[in-house]
Amino acid sequence: MSTAPWITYRPELKVLDCTVRDGGLINDHAFEDGFVKAVYDACVAAGIDYMEIGYKNSKQLFAKDRFGAWRHCDEDDIRRIVGENDTNLKLTAMADAGKSDWRTDILPKDKSVLDCIRVAFYVHQVSEAADMIKDAADKGYEVTANLMAVSTAQQAEVDQALEVLASSPASTLVVVDSFGSLYAEQIERLVKKYQDYGRATGKEVGIHAHNNQQLAFANTIEAIIHGANRADASLAGLGRGAGNCPMELLIGFLRNPKFSIRPIYQVLQDEMIPMSQVIEWGPFPQYHMTGQYNTHPREAMAARADESRRDAYVDFYDKLISDV
Amino acid sequence: MSTAPWITYRPELKVLDCTVRDGGLINDHAFEDGFVKAVYDACVAAGIDYMEIGYKNSKQLFAKDRFGAWRHCDEDDIRRIVGENDTNLKLTAMADAGKSDWRTDILPKDKSVLDCIRVAFYVHQVSEAADMIKDAADKGYEVTANLMAVSTAQQAEVDQALEVLASSPASTLVVVDSFGSLYAEQIERLVKKYQDYGRATGKEVGIHAHNNQQLAFANTIEAIIHGANRADASLAGLGRGAGNCPMELLIGFLRNPKFSIRPIYQVLQDEMIPMSQVIEWGPFPQYHMTGQYNTHPREAMAARADESRRDAYVDFYDKLISDV
Repeated sequence: MSTAPWITYRPELKVLDCTVRDGGLINDHAFEDGFVKAVYDACVAAGIDYMEIGYKNSKQLFAKDRFGAWRHCDEDDIRRIVGENDTNLKLTAMADAGKSDWRTDILPKDKSVLDCIRVAFYVHQVSEAADMIKDAADKGYEVTANLMAVSTAQQAEVDQALEVLASSPASTLVVVDSFGSLYAEQIERLVKKYQDYGRATGKEVGIHAHNNQQLAFANTIEAIIHGANRADASLAGLGRGAGNCPMELLIGFLRNPKFSIRPIYQVLQDEMIPMSQVIEWGPFPQYHMTGQYNTHPREAMAARADESRRDAYVDFYDKLISDV
Repeated sequence: MSTAPWITYRPELKVLDCTVRDGGLINDHAFEDGFVKAVYDACVAAGIDYMEIGYKNSKQLFAKDRFGAWRHCDEDDIRRIVGENDTNLKLTAMADAGKSDWRTDILPKDKSVLDCIRVAFYVHQVSEAADMIKDAADKGYEVTANLMAVSTAQQAEVDQALEVLASSPASTLVVVDSFGSLYAEQIERLVKKYQDYGRATGKEVGIHAHNNQQLAFANTIEAIIHGANRADASLAGLGRGAGNCPMELLIGFLRNPKFSIRPIYQVLQDEMIPMSQVIEWGPFPQYHMTGQYNTHPREAMAARADESRRDAYVDFYDKLISDV
């Protein structure tokens, strides 16, 4: 019996940075180019495998005069940051079912600097998701299937969706804890379930955790222990509401010498400290509550954004339990 | 097979609040009476089992004019807050090997409102700890054995210490991750090891986690899953450096209906938000680094306390790796 497996590593484990994509949900993706470039440079320097630079979302639903460039990820905008991306870092964008003009907005791979499309969907949208996955794969991309808010779906629905996805060309099935409500034992079961469905077609399992209960890093480790080979994280945990698994913790945990943590601390110092003066994210008590009640964090985000309600934890709690 | 064990509970699981004891390591235990009383009242209202109100440390080593009352926990000071403590909340204080005049300062139980003495020691101090445990048990207290910094001790030393403790009158052996460096798999092994040593004499296993890597809550859950029945936490995670397992997360996780979380949110709102304006604690990057390098957080605390160095993550990292 190996006695300390955590000090070695699996070369097939790959890390994805979702700082700009998930963090943009706080500020309508209105990041300055300098910030996006700094994240990109840090990812390259740190040996991170993928950077998710934003969404491929509809310009009808998300107007260009109200949302920043990273909500749409037009090719020109991406290339302004990465040029031809002549690095080992792969680039990805996320397309949501129900919110994306994917047939037109996702270009054939040979016209794009993107390497991978991540298809995000709720369980009832799995049929559109299957069409989106096929479309992106036909266009030449690596594709992942990100079934959101799995903590609120019925087990039978999840099984049905995974059955559809198992025969899709998606190469990865991602366990997505959108509400930050899952505990380690639940993560273990989901990872094993996704593996069972994906095994026959050689799919990897991924993990995308939210930090509502300060469990994003712990649940990411838990998924990795049980065989997940794709892990999402973001700089300083930047992401909607409570944020994501902090990249600095994940890279500090992983033992693959290809990763370098010093560029991560550098970009935290140079970019994320100033960013934290402008926008708020992190595991505040209101996010604990929505996580524990397995609900969307939108009410918690609204309370945190309102100075008169930010510190009123008990009022928030009373309203939450009377609403559920 | 039970499929969702996390929604039920073990009645024998007991929670200890260490807000004042561990938090006092930030401010030399100079808390106002009103704060200590508010913590006490919240613990009573929330159904918490134990409150650790401070240390029983030497007045020679920790002079009364430099340290607050909760470094010594004189009987009069405790009673000023709790009276005769006519509640279900048990009171505990911690005595350190090498830092306590335990023979004289720990009164016979019938002269004290304390219920339990927690004996803290490093592995090389286990012989004094055994004497302290016997002394406190002979005086009539429930006693726990808290072997600190187990992450830096040799396995053979830990085994030897546990063998000594197994035959002691301590009723609980506490897994103490002083440096916040342990991952879930390591917590599991330590809990099982402590259980193995304590089983013959009917001892419980406890967990005291630090939050350097945002793993204090996760590791506390992990210990509980593997059978630890004593869990430490503190309000808003208040504690030295990165702090402890946040009580609000632990109580939100536990399903025993005897616990009530609303008084916890109330005291967070009333006391912990103002406290966070005065002293700093939490999982900042410097604490990630000392946790990952399994070293004492004192250098990280010094860097965080110095405004000119607080944001210089890379300098701190460079110094840390050149020093180890």
